[in-house]
Amino acid sequence: MIDNVFKCRLAVRDYECDMQGVVNNSVYQNYLEHARHEFLKHKRLGFADLTRRGIIVVVVSAELNYLRSLRSGDAFDVTVEPFKVSTLRLGFKQRILCASSQALMLKALIVTTAVNEKGRPYYPQELDCLLE
Amino acid sequence: MIDNVFKCRLAVRDYECDMQGVVNNSVYQNYLEHARHEFLKHKRLGFADLTRRGIIVVVVSAELNYLRSLRSGDAFDVTVEPFKVSTLRLGFKQRILCASSQALMLKALIVTTAVNEKGRPYYPQELDCLLE
Amino acid sequence: MIDNVFKCRLAVRDYECDMQGVVNNSVYQNYLEHARHEFLKHKRLGFADLTRRGIIVVVVSAELNYLRSLRSGDAFDVTVEPFKVSTLRLGFKQRILCASSQALMLKALIVTTAVNEKGRPYYPQELDCLLE
Amino acid sequence: MIDNVFKCRLAVRDYECDMQGVVNNSVYQNYLEHARHEFLKHKRLGFADLTRRGIIVVVVSAELNYLRSLRSGDAFDVTVEPFKVSTLRLGFKQRILCASSQALMLKALIVTTAVNEKGRPYYPQELDCLLE
Repeated sequence: MIDNVFKCRLAVRDYECDMQGVVNNSVYQNYLEHARHEFLKHKRLGFADLTRRGIIVVVVSAELNYLRSLRSGDAFDVTVEPFKVSTLRLGFKQRILCASSQALMLKALIVTTAVNEKGRPYYPQELDCLLE
Repeated sequence: MIDNVFKCRLAVRDYECDMQGVVNNSVYQNYLEHARHEFLKHKRLGFADLTRRGIIVVVVSAELNYLRSLRSGDAFDVTVEPFKVSTLRLGFKQRILCASSQALMLKALIVTTAVNEKGRPYYPQELDCLLE
Repeated sequence: MIDNVFKCRLAVRDYECDMQGVVNNSVYQNYLEHARHEFLKHKRLGFADLTRRGIIVVVVSAELNYLRSLRSGDAFDVTVEPFKVSTLRLGFKQRILCASSQALMLKALIVTTAVNEKGRPYYPQELDCLLE
Repeated sequence: MIDNVFKCRLAVRDYECDMQGVVNNSVYQNYLEHARHEFLKHKRLGFADLTRRGIIVVVVSAELNYLRSLRSGDAFDVTVEPFKVSTLRLGFKQRILCASSQALMLKALIVTTAVNEKGRPYYPQELDCLLE
């Protein structure tokens, strides 16, 4: 964690590659989500635990820019950089970098909010620590 | 296919739901991709066939707005509306609508390009029919 | 539903294919699970509803024989044939058949049980209707 | 690698959990496949490389015994123990163990064969090293 940027190293698994021999587009969202949840854990928050306590954090929007394709065997870093979007919304700038060359593979902007039992957005104070 | 908008009906499968009991965020990209490939098929183009012929179409960017969550058992429609982004890029406006209420669940904008064997973008004429 | 054999027609989606250009091994379990849940629905039982009511049905064992590979675009039928394994266990003979040729692609035997909140197996009477 | 048993440590990712809050049945096959491919790599064989060279190794059968469920955050070990099934078939005994307690979560027996371009089984000598 340097300058409030969390980093998590992963490697491509072969079942994540599609018939083009590269990681399928939808799988990058799995990587990004996993890195965000690792970031939560780093901040001593568990996503499963939050869910059990009724704190439902949902993705409101996702913007993904696919720059280069990950392939079988590639190791890569996923970064997580939280920021406040608005009173109720928490954003995450995320990047995927090739582990060996540090070439930028994907840039993403994920916006989330918490919703209560009626599906109404609210801001649970438990998330404050993410921005510290 | 009304007004150049292709539509494809699907239903949520239980293994697509995560611990929150709703369809996981990344799965929507699977739905969107599947609908685009069904649209290709409707235009007598097969994605697997294009890939075998060396016409590699890749996603350049994806913008997804998650408005409401799909749940176990929900039937839904995925729309595909192609448009020209630039000389080399083909875009797809896509929406996911609840089958029963036609409520908008997700809006997306997917931009694609074809790349040659060296990874350089180009425009294969085979794709012309998609805009007709 | 003929002779107590439930059948459900599906088609391969391109994101289910791996770098060999065929449906990845693990995806067949998704197909089999989806067909079992459609069978439940046909019997007016919903898997999500059972789960919400605390009736947790889990897979105890799965035997899968892969005979032929499904490929991009293939339509196929998944069968579900329930049978009593023991007092506490419910089994499902399942097959996947190519829709056009009715060639057998996969044979499977799935054994399930319900577990209570403490993880102990039990037999909920709600499942009786599956064998009728 | 002790006594010809290869071991690979992984951890559950939240998107692998389903609405029951546990890892979905089909995901275990992903874990098993990934560990086998890591074992290949350990033996200096790459699955993607084999595929590119036309050596198509396919799963013939899979037997999975689900003993305990993995949950969000669980770390676990996947073992790979190769053995000769017949002239043409290579088998893998595999186990999934909880990393902390070493409790057995899943036992599996995976049988594979290589097929040539016509889909006929054969035994490529490249695989000899797996049994050494």
